[in-house]
This record gives sequence, structure tokens and C-alpha cells, in this order.
Amino acid sequence: MKTHFLKINVVFILFMVSLSGGFCFAQSISSIADDFKPSTLNQPGKLYPQLNSQGYVRFRIEAPQAQSVVVSLGLGGTKGGTPLTKTADGSWTGTTAGPMEEGFHYYHLTIDGGVFNDPGTLNFFGSTRWESGIEVPAHDQDFYALKDVPHGNVQQILFPSKSTNTSRRAFVYTPPGYGKEKKKRYPVLYLQHGWGEDETAWTNQGHANLIMDNLISEGKIKPFIVVMTYGMTNETKFGGLKNFDIIPFQTVLVDELIPYIDASFNTLCDKQSRAMAGLSMGGMETHKITLNRPDVFSYYALLSGGLYLPEEIKDKSKVKLIFLSCGKFENPDGVKNAAVALQNAGIHAVYFVSENTRHEFQTWRRSLLELAPLLFK
Amino acid sequence: MKTHFLKINVVFILFMVSLSGGFCFAQSISSIADDFKPSTLNQPGKLYPQLNSQGYVRFRIEAPQAQSVVVSLGLGGTKGGTPLTKTADGSWTGTTAGPMEEGFHYYHLTIDGGVFNDPGTLNFFGSTRWESGIEVPAHDQDFYALKDVPHGNVQQILFPSKSTNTSRRAFVYTPPGYGKEKKKRYPVLYLQHGWGEDETAWTNQGHANLIMDNLISEGKIKPFIVVMTYGMTNETKFGGLKNFDIIPFQTVLVDELIPYIDASFNTLCDKQSRAMAGLSMGGMETHKITLNRPDVFSYYALLSGGLYLPEEIKDKSKVKLIFLSCGKFENPDGVKNAAVALQNAGIHAVYFVSENTRHEFQTWRRSLLELAPLLFK
Repeated sequence: MKTHFLKINVVFILFMVSLSGGFCFAQSISSIADDFKPSTLNQPGKLYPQLNSQGYVRFRIEAPQAQSVVVSLGLGGTKGGTPLTKTADGSWTGTTAGPMEEGFHYYHLTIDGGVFNDPGTLNFFGSTRWESGIEVPAHDQDFYALKDVPHGNVQQILFPSKSTNTSRRAFVYTPPGYGKEKKKRYPVLYLQHGWGEDETAWTNQGHANLIMDNLISEGKIKPFIVVMTYGMTNETKFGGLKNFDIIPFQTVLVDELIPYIDASFNTLCDKQSRAMAGLSMGGMETHKITLNRPDVFSYYALLSGGLYLPEEIKDKSKVKLIFLSCGKFENPDGVKNAAVALQNAGIHAVYFVSENTRHEFQTWRRSLLELAPLLFK
Repeated sequence: MKTHFLKINVVFILFMVSLSGGFCFAQSISSIADDFKPSTLNQPGKLYPQLNSQGYVRFRIEAPQAQSVVVSLGLGGTKGGTPLTKTADGSWTGTTAGPMEEGFHYYHLTIDGGVFNDPGTLNFFGSTRWESGIEVPAHDQDFYALKDVPHGNVQQILFPSKSTNTSRRAFVYTPPGYGKEKKKRYPVLYLQHGWGEDETAWTNQGHANLIMDNLISEGKIKPFIVVMTYGMTNETKFGGLKNFDIIPFQTVLVDELIPYIDASFNTLCDKQSRAMAGLSMGGMETHKITLNRPDVFSYYALLSGGLYLPEEIKDKSKVKLIFLSCGKFENPDGVKNAAVALQNAGIHAVYFVSENTRHEFQTWRRSLLELAPLLFK
């Protein structure tokens, strides 16, 4: 019921905003519920930003002598932004022009022409920087909630990398009870973040560990290990995607990280027990690496991260699954058509479209939820 | 040699600043080395803040329409601050009035009356918020450097806490090779952060994991496990220290976390193999808990975190070590006198004073370096 109401409300407000040509009218309509509460991602003790039950976000920034404060967060994928206005007490306040889409959004402030984070919220690594984040409660948020179930651990490892002459960081999710049975071994999913993000994204923004904990406690998946490392190795021109050379990262992942993981953890270290998935740029990396090194992985997943063409798969017998997904506001037909073409070529392909989301983490959380039960069958 | 030069320089500049009454004169002296480089704690690709070889810090903030930008970082324990001035290109720049003390410092910006973080740097949790941080290279920085040695892992655990009706987070350092020998068991140090910090502080700011890795690789300590959890349980009035009631945290630590650790990790779970240490407020917690529960820990350490009086120790035979430390600019005589009094009472007490540091992380990094070899003898 709540979802249904929200949907109508969003459509109505978007319609009214398009009529009124801006934010002011929408802010004045009387239907904004007066039940704002501090965001769950606020820093300890901070009262703002706040959300109401409809998904509107209200900001309050202290900067009494500032000339202008604008929040980058707006409707429709954070486009547009929300200008704040100065109040009598010297703080700057404002509310989004309408309810925000479900899930996690990055944002920042522009204060007098400079870009800063909202001191009220936690920061999350995206756009090659630590940005402010806000979580709009989703109708299906239960699947990534922190529950009273057995929890796996997320451990930071520092693995030696000769090719980059560094100790590199990865995070390794081990399922509840890992290590208790000395002889039990687990399959492994290598899971990559997107452009501008890093190895913290899948747990901090994506709650991958909680999604795993919950799926395991409900008996919906066989426990497996998840390994997340930094994929922005193309650093000669920092963060550039043009002319991205996959080889440096492929070397780190396949020739350095995987052997280290197999030597250090209780893994099943055959190809049948190894999957690779990535979101956005991580999908591009997954696509290239799985094709370059067909003997390493059996399960391939691209989350808002491109497609496989049937002719790219040289030996169908080596691929147990291709999973393609995206948000409804991305390219759902492209994903569907690609999966059908792969199926017609005799490849086990599955696609998933996340309702009412775009190129953001709610799409990828849901994608992991759909993908995990399909792995290591 | 370098240290000696720095010392003279600091004294000279402090003297000149006191004569001139401010920062401007000091900034104009010709001895500021022109070899500024981006701070090692900068966000990826960010050029500012920068440090020179003497420890001066230079800032550059984009906020073209701002009226004033002040950095909280100044000489002598970040007091005073560094006002920035607007340059022709619209950015705000400035340099500290003198070399900063060695080690890690928190700071923030005040822009037009509002408090924000420097978008150039990483954030670290302190003062109950994520703050900007800067690292001034120390003459002894090698002991917490990331080296090409075997690395232990730092794992996030979520442990059930009935007393607070939550899943609580802790970080667990396990030494290199942990889990390889199935029957090998390790002693455990419970290590607490200070007021306003959280369970991320000892690894992020303190590099506790790297200090352990390096000590182990040099054969200077027997490997042990380190457990770090959140100690600010006194949250009815957030973050308040007045009337701090130790019981809620003591219950979480002793009755919930320790049994969980002993059930989940390969620990030696006797009192002889358990230590507790804390910095600042964490020292206050260590002091109270070790005295309240003398059957749980054998090694007690207060890092800039108070003292034990001989009469507080009811049964000397239960205490294997009391370690007291602080920075030279804190209360070195108090720490020394307390240790001597404990020694005179027949208790094995050791004190350590960190040269030229104050109530900051360089003191606590060095304290851990001194403490670790004394544990679990």
C-alpha cells in the first residue's frame, strides 16, 4: 500500500514540478508529511539531514556568513540539486522538490563556489572522493538490514603485489562459522566496485556482507566467500576510463590476489567454484577479464556494466552462468535482449531489472540478491 | 640530525611568533623550505594540503565567493589555527606559522562561520565526527610504515549484544599466519580508543595493525590478537563524560565481546593471556574495568589515560603488568611518579614518555610499540 501511494505521489509531484517549472511550488504543496527524522547515515548525534515517510530529504547547514549553499541531491538521479535558503538563525535549510528514489545516493554541498561534504552525514567513497551519502528507506530494505542472525566477518587483507610493487588492500567476506570446521572449503565470488569507488563500496554502500548473512540465514544460498579489491589501477592519468588497459588490473586480480586468497583462506580453488561480478566499470573489467582468462572463472555477472555477445564466448562449456542486470531507468531492453541472444546461443544466461532505480546502489544490492542464489550450483 | 634541526627551528619560531604576536611574521621568514608535496593522507589525486620537509603545512581551498576560511590546525596542539587568504584565482591559501609536531593531527575548516572538512584529505573519526586528518612525517615513522613483510588481517566482526539489544561492531587483528596451524592459540589485547573516537581509530589513525606486523616480522614480540570495539556506550546524553557509568560498556566488553571472541577465534582464553589497554577515555575505561573485574585481565595499560594508585590494587598477584604512558607535553612527571609508587608497592609497573608529543596519536603509536613487547611474558 505504502509503495503504491508513493508511486502515485511521485508521479503527481513530478507532474506539478514540470508545470510549475521548479522547486518552489512543489515545496509549498501541503502534502509533504511533517514526520521528518534524522537520516540513518547521519554522524553520531547529528540531527540533519532528515527524511520524511514519503522520501523527501530536508537539509540544514550552518554557515551564517555564506552567500549561497546548494545541495547536489535533486530529483531523478541527483540532477538539478536543491538550493538552500538562509533562515533567521543563520543556518541554511531546504527540502528536496519531491520524494527521492529508494536506496542510497551520493551528494555534496556547493558553498560559495566550493565543493564540501555535509558535516551531518557519513562519507562514502565515490567519484574518486569521499562524498556525503543518504539512504532513502526502500520498500524492500529488509534484505540488506542488520538483523539478529549469525554474521560473517569482513576482513581487510594486505596482499603482496609484485606487478605494482605494493601491498594492496582487499576485503574478504567469510560466512558465519567460517573456520569452525577445519576441512570445510568455500567457493569464491570476486566482486568489483564501479568507477570512482573503491574496495569499501560493496560493504559500506552495498551492504554485501549483510545481504550474504541474510541469504545464508534464510537457507537461500550455500555459503561462499566474497573478495573485493581496488580496480582503479589505470592511474597514469588518475581515474581515466579512456583507453583503459585491463592488463594491470587483470594481473593484480588473477595472478596475485587469487593465488593469495587460495593460499590464505579455506577456498575451493577450482574454476567451477569461482565467480566474477562487477558493477558499472567493474562490469567492464569482469567482461574483459573473464573473456581473456576463460580458465579462471565459471560464473560471470555484469551489474549495470555492459553485455556479452554470444560470439564472444569461445567455449560455451566453460561458462556456467552469465548474469546481466540494470535499473529500470537504465537500459532494461538492452539487458533483456542480450540475455535472450545468449540463451538462444545455448548459454545459461539470466537477466534482472531492478524496479524504479537507476545507476545507483539500490540496483546493485538487488542484483547481488538475485545473483547469489544462482552461483555455484 | 634532522630532528635536532627541527627542534631548534621549532623553538626559534615559537620564540619569534611570541615576539611578533602572530603568524604573519613567521610566515615571511625566508627559511621555509620550498619543497612542499601533497600529504600522504590526501584523497586520490588531490594536490593539497601539502607538507614541506620541515613540517610546515600549506592549504588550498576552493571557495571563490567565501568571506573567510580558517584552518583549525595551528602550532602547539592545533591551537590558534591558520587563517587562509584569498588569491587572485579565487582559491584560499595559507601555511602554518611554523613546523607542525610529528605525527597525526585532526583538523577542520571554518568557512563563513560553518565547520566543514577539507575536501583534499581523508577523514578520521574523532571529536564524535569524521574530521580531516594530516600526517606530519616523524623521525621514527618506520615502525608504523607499511612494509613488504607478512601482514596480519583486520576483520570487522558483528557480535550479538543482549545488553544493548544490538549487533555491535569490533575490529579484530589476527597476526600473519593465523589459522594456518589449526591448534595454535593466541593471547588477546583489548585496545580502546579515546573520547569522540570509535573502533576505527586504532587502525586508521594508530596503524596498530602495521605496528604489530612490523614487531612480529622483526621477532620482537610473540604474535597476539588485538580486539578493538566502540567504547562510547554512555549515550543517553551523547558523548558525555560527566557521570560516565562504566557498567554498560563493561557488560558489553567483558560479558558479551570476550566470550564471543573466545568462541570465534583461536584464543588462549585464560586471564594470563588477556590484556586491556586504552588511550585517554579508553584508559579511564581500562582503569575502571580492570579494577572492577580483576579476574579477567592480567596486563593493564593506560595511554594518556590516568593512573593507578597502589592502594587500588587489591591483590597484587593478579596483576602481571601496569603500563602508564603519555606525551612529553602532557603529564610526564605524574606518569613517572605513579609508576615508581606502584613499583615501591611491589607491582610490576613500567612507564613511557613520548618525546615532543602531546595528547595525540603519535604518543599512542609509540606507547603501543613500547607496550607490546611487555605483554604475555
